[in-house]
Amino acid sequence: MGEEIKITAVIGAGVIGGGWAARLLLNGMSVKVHDPSPLSEKNLKEMLSNAERAYSKLTMAPLVKPGTLEFVDTIENAVQGVSFIQESVPENPDLKRSVLNEIDQHAPETAVICSSTSGLKPSLLQKGMKNPERFLVGHPFNPVYLLPLVEICGGELTSTESKKRAAEFYQDIGMKPLILRKEIDAFIADRLQEAVWREGLWLICDDVATTEELDDAIRFGFGLRWAQMGLFETYRIAGGKAGIRHFLSQFGPSLQWPWSKLTDVPELNQELIDKIVEQSDQQSGKHSIRDLERIRDNNLVAIMQGLKLQDWGVGAVLKEYEELLYKKAHSAVASGDADYSKPLRLHDSKVRPDWLDYNGHMTESRYLQVFGDTTDAFLQFIGMDEEYRSEGFSFYTVETHIRHLREVAGGESLSVETQLLGFDEKRFRIVHMMIHPESGEIPATSEHMLLHVETNVGQACPMEKMLHEKLTEIWNGHQNLHIPDYAGKGIVQLQKPLK
Amino acid sequence: MGEEIKITAVIGAGVIGGGWAARLLLNGMSVKVHDPSPLSEKNLKEMLSNAERAYSKLTMAPLVKPGTLEFVDTIENAVQGVSFIQESVPENPDLKRSVLNEIDQHAPETAVICSSTSGLKPSLLQKGMKNPERFLVGHPFNPVYLLPLVEICGGELTSTESKKRAAEFYQDIGMKPLILRKEIDAFIADRLQEAVWREGLWLICDDVATTEELDDAIRFGFGLRWAQMGLFETYRIAGGKAGIRHFLSQFGPSLQWPWSKLTDVPELNQELIDKIVEQSDQQSGKHSIRDLERIRDNNLVAIMQGLKLQDWGVGAVLKEYEELLYKKAHSAVASGDADYSKPLRLHDSKVRPDWLDYNGHMTESRYLQVFGDTTDAFLQFIGMDEEYRSEGFSFYTVETHIRHLREVAGGESLSVETQLLGFDEKRFRIVHMMIHPESGEIPATSEHMLLHVETNVGQACPMEKMLHEKLTEIWNGHQNLHIPDYAGKGIVQLQKPLK
Repeated sequence: MGEEIKITAVIGAGVIGGGWAARLLLNGMSVKVHDPSPLSEKNLKEMLSNAERAYSKLTMAPLVKPGTLEFVDTIENAVQGVSFIQESVPENPDLKRSVLNEIDQHAPETAVICSSTSGLKPSLLQKGMKNPERFLVGHPFNPVYLLPLVEICGGELTSTESKKRAAEFYQDIGMKPLILRKEIDAFIADRLQEAVWREGLWLICDDVATTEELDDAIRFGFGLRWAQMGLFETYRIAGGKAGIRHFLSQFGPSLQWPWSKLTDVPELNQELIDKIVEQSDQQSGKHSIRDLERIRDNNLVAIMQGLKLQDWGVGAVLKEYEELLYKKAHSAVASGDADYSKPLRLHDSKVRPDWLDYNGHMTESRYLQVFGDTTDAFLQFIGMDEEYRSEGFSFYTVETHIRHLREVAGGESLSVETQLLGFDEKRFRIVHMMIHPESGEIPATSEHMLLHVETNVGQACPMEKMLHEKLTEIWNGHQNLHIPDYAGKGIVQLQKPLK
Repeated sequence: MGEEIKITAVIGAGVIGGGWAARLLLNGMSVKVHDPSPLSEKNLKEMLSNAERAYSKLTMAPLVKPGTLEFVDTIENAVQGVSFIQESVPENPDLKRSVLNEIDQHAPETAVICSSTSGLKPSLLQKGMKNPERFLVGHPFNPVYLLPLVEICGGELTSTESKKRAAEFYQDIGMKPLILRKEIDAFIADRLQEAVWREGLWLICDDVATTEELDDAIRFGFGLRWAQMGLFETYRIAGGKAGIRHFLSQFGPSLQWPWSKLTDVPELNQELIDKIVEQSDQQSGKHSIRDLERIRDNNLVAIMQGLKLQDWGVGAVLKEYEELLYKKAHSAVASGDADYSKPLRLHDSKVRPDWLDYNGHMTESRYLQVFGDTTDAFLQFIGMDEEYRSEGFSFYTVETHIRHLREVAGGESLSVETQLLGFDEKRFRIVHMMIHPESGEIPATSEHMLLHVETNVGQACPMEKMLHEKLTEIWNGHQNLHIPDYAGKGIVQLQKPLK
């Protein structure tokens, strides 16, 4: 149905309702919002601006034109004429029921009504509705505009058709619907979270750990695994080649040990073991354990590298570790004199996952990023540092000529070599050659002219003597190098169409 | 101490012990391994090759020279002369105690002995040791060579000095040690995991969910959050501007609801609430809620993009979503009548704050991003859509020539106009002019040559008729436009340095 829904209503616009409104708007839906709080409009707009920011970073795909946002003063006005309604008022059963009944009364009979409740059973909430068959729980996760999971749980009176319609709608706005096979308090994810929450409260209550220590115990360990594989696939791997059955036999006994306050445990008998093994084979059996290990490792590496750029959590640990490695390598390598009889190698890079275009290759602007980083390394090398810039001088790139010779894929390592082609007192001209370190292939080259400027007035001026001397020193070697044939050439003329 | 430890012993080389051996080796330590299983050597070497593979992807920093690996036939031979020992035999209290006592008997008195136990108390394990003060738990997470967390828990007889030495050692091999303030069964992380495990077993036992559904409920929702912030920092954000206190007051009542089998819950009284609020302020108070939201969103986006490259979990969802966006964008562009008597205006942009360089101007690679987005818009305009690409054809940029005419500042609006300079059956050549829409100034131009390729083989081939016709249509107008003087020109030669 996705296509036909264009106007939606959001009832309750706190953290969850506001997140829904943002996701809907950014996916082209118009949204009518009702929330009695006087602050809700301001809060929602702040949240929307966060969501826009996140979306602009999330994808290079062209986003759809956002829908229109309208605040209305009653539930009746919000739900009239809409085809999809998401309720996200506070987690109070009486309040939820009363709001949902009002929605049911005024919404078109064909509209789907979803509640964001974290754990109340839909059968309880749909009592007394005129059209209870179109009501269900669509339970999202904060931030709703980014996290894909939505648990779909119907009550006794919910129709299968409604669950299917809701699932299609959610999928159309980028989500991952999980339709529950049984109605249960707190559904699936929140039962798991609630168990952790309750266990965590004990640990704090008993002074075993602080909130920060608890959080660290999660985000530096199993939390990283759970971003990419859940509990069971992870334990399948932990069983080693013998798999999940081995794991179960190994950790079965600990179910009886006081390893959690949750002591009401099911009996891990042969029947339950067989069920788990069968389901796990169904889920993951298409991969060998060694394959699953590699998939897991690739995923973990991707997460660690992604968070390194944010300098956060495991990414900050990786960054520190790298600094340590660089320090060790540096103290191992004798500083030695630079060799100007060949091009300089000043920069290495690796093609990151967010650098890829829809062809799966490094997107063109990232080539220039790698080349630009190399230019920065060259500028540092000739002595243009933070201090030099703070005195009001810098180099600006005035011209760039890039040649793409072959595609570059995600994860590839790249080195860049730099040759000085010439300079005068205000300018220098260089060529960078991107090199694949193993094959020696050159996927791209770039030629640049840089101009020395006084930054306040934005005008060219001679560079300081020290920099000029360093360029001279490099030039004494580089003037003897072969000048690439493509240097100084323009893009070929192609003005006559051929038939 | 890190520096002085060079020879270590690993006792028990299953999934955990093997992971330890790999991490130690890849961090330059020599490792003596003892494991009675005849398969352990083969398994460890497979694991080591996985770990080497992961490390080569993990960092571009120069790795240290790996240490040497030696298998020995007795515990005595393994631990003699080493300064650090990690025990990882199966989780059986009697077996662990007997192995640890043997280690203690033969290891140098100054060696630190750590057990990888997932939950047995160190006080229990160190009973009967000669030198129990140097024994502690160092509990890691699989894969040990990648995940940084190691929980350090001492027993009644463990010295503070030993815990400190172990923490420094673990940190030196890239880990994040968490020293427990109290001894407790299953420490911190495994208590939380065990609670989830037990809850999950119930859900499977009661046919509420399969292993796959449980895993999906984790990895598409809260698992993504927990890779970067734990439970408490996440809930602090969920409380909105009112923070964790608001969250606690909102979700306090649900502690009494049947939302988990863990029904033995602490009383969420004023004292416990105050403790949590104070600890959470201490942990996260340096960031505002809006800042935390942005940090969280950046982290989540990084994780999603990282996993997109792996086409796994949330990354696969993002990939599908992007394909949907590309499809929508295409069907949205009305083919309509365009005016070919002037350049096309197909793309607008705005200079985002994270696009600025240290001079406060748009950094050079972002110019190419704006121009590249315009090229994408042009490709869509001539009919190259997702469907066309899925048939195995695309256009690749082979050459680019950018001219920077003035700086661009943060927040500026930019439009880009595009002129077709020529084409044949496999190529087209265009020029983009970046225009400041208010002043009409042109801060930069770029000229591009694009080549039509069969993507599987990466070879040029003629474009489909429909695209060629569209280019012809544009050319009928654009051939009458003035060709910019700079088109087809190279960067000026500058080979003679001036004095």
